[in-house]
Amino acid sequence: MDNRPIGVFDSGVGGLTVVNALSKVLPKESIYYVGDTARVPYGNKSKSSILKFSLQITKWLLKQNCKIIVIACNTASSLALSYLKSNLSTSIIGVIDPAIKYAQMKTKNKQIGVLGTRATINSNIYSNRFKELDQKISVISKACPLFVPLVEEGFISGPIPLSVAKHYLNDIRETDVDTLILGCTHYPLLATIISNVLGPSIKLIDSSLATADKVKSMLKNNNLLADKNLSEINCYVTDYTKTFNTTVDRFFKSNINSIKKIDVF
Amino acid sequence: MDNRPIGVFDSGVGGLTVVNALSKVLPKESIYYVGDTARVPYGNKSKSSILKFSLQITKWLLKQNCKIIVIACNTASSLALSYLKSNLSTSIIGVIDPAIKYAQMKTKNKQIGVLGTRATINSNIYSNRFKELDQKISVISKACPLFVPLVEEGFISGPIPLSVAKHYLNDIRETDVDTLILGCTHYPLLATIISNVLGPSIKLIDSSLATADKVKSMLKNNNLLADKNLSEINCYVTDYTKTFNTTVDRFFKSNINSIKKIDVF
Repeated sequence: MDNRPIGVFDSGVGGLTVVNALSKVLPKESIYYVGDTARVPYGNKSKSSILKFSLQITKWLLKQNCKIIVIACNTASSLALSYLKSNLSTSIIGVIDPAIKYAQMKTKNKQIGVLGTRATINSNIYSNRFKELDQKISVISKACPLFVPLVEEGFISGPIPLSVAKHYLNDIRETDVDTLILGCTHYPLLATIISNVLGPSIKLIDSSLATADKVKSMLKNNNLLADKNLSEINCYVTDYTKTFNTTVDRFFKSNINSIKKIDVF
Repeated sequence: MDNRPIGVFDSGVGGLTVVNALSKVLPKESIYYVGDTARVPYGNKSKSSILKFSLQITKWLLKQNCKIIVIACNTASSLALSYLKSNLSTSIIGVIDPAIKYAQMKTKNKQIGVLGTRATINSNIYSNRFKELDQKISVISKACPLFVPLVEEGFISGPIPLSVAKHYLNDIRETDVDTLILGCTHYPLLATIISNVLGPSIKLIDSSLATADKVKSMLKNNNLLADKNLSEINCYVTDYTKTFNTTVDRFFKSNINSIKKIDVF
């Protein structure tokens, strides 16, 4: 048993969807969440910047004595996971591999779509990983850079997100994709719109539940599960604005014990 | 005469519209431009973060021996100008006051509209400044947070930016505003769309030309004009990505002598 907290980080507040899933699957665990709101978004930034930001935050979480690090951000998972793994001794997982496993189980025709930020899609991580798993899987990827600002501004239904979704999803609509990975923490909030554009038969894969299940099995296998009854969710941000709480409410429905501003750079 | 460069900074590449205007009005001047692309955008961030970022970049520009600092970013001008002025001895100007002077000259009915980022609009700087100048001027402000990502993604015409513009400009369309300040470096690229929504009679004020005129008069009055014939425009960024050049091309048509990545944090 190990009552130290789980450390989770994201470029902003979107990663709270992973915290949501973790607190459902692992209700006894305490979670320390860091949102790099001073430098959000990561999605259009370079690999070297994302490595630097991810290392600064991971080091802060390790100083807080976290027993495992979960990268809740798809962009940071795509670009920084292997670098962090090779530089740190603590267990660290991202959201890419759990989503890939889920998609592989769900697809029937091996035609899989991936939506993500420009940095995630340009990294080719999803298509490379699928190729390693099964040469017969065909992957169609699409960067959707406007989805994050739309969700952050509350445009999750109505004609504006619908027309943006039609613009981005046109290529995928013309394929036989039967399974679509929502490769960014914000995208599940546009799931209804995406289904409206692509049709109800397409299976949408949300990384957060897949990741929470993976964290549970890792903690169990390493005898690191908590046995406390009073778990806490503490949220740390690198920038705090008045509108922060409104945005948090969009991503997280449970109680957050505290929100504090921290300096990591 | 003074051949030291003019220092210009912005949260990203949008401030190159100010460099455009400066190089037209002051063709003999060398310009050092810093785009804080690692932390872009500033528009939804807190005052304390914007002060910190602006001070870090201004200090870097002063180390490069700049004779004057121009804050090309409306958000940083709104929140950091007075702080920087009181902490630095070098001349420093923002884009707010020059735009206000232009708008005051242009309006006939003293009904002025202002569009900006959330941070700019929440600072109330435009309405406060107009009240100081003329109690009879009435100001209607509107934050348009999706305009920056739309422009950065190249959505400057067509149904998507049109529907977003209609959404944001509905309140202003129902007023008697005759003059509208485009209070963000990105917004002039949406001028056609904005005119389509509000009608051709509304006067749009682009801060960049107003600011360049103000810089010229300040340099002239202080005997700081350059007399070189071989002026240079050097661009420095805190993050460099492959798509950077494409975005630069949207904002800047002249030749940039060099683009280099710098570390300011």
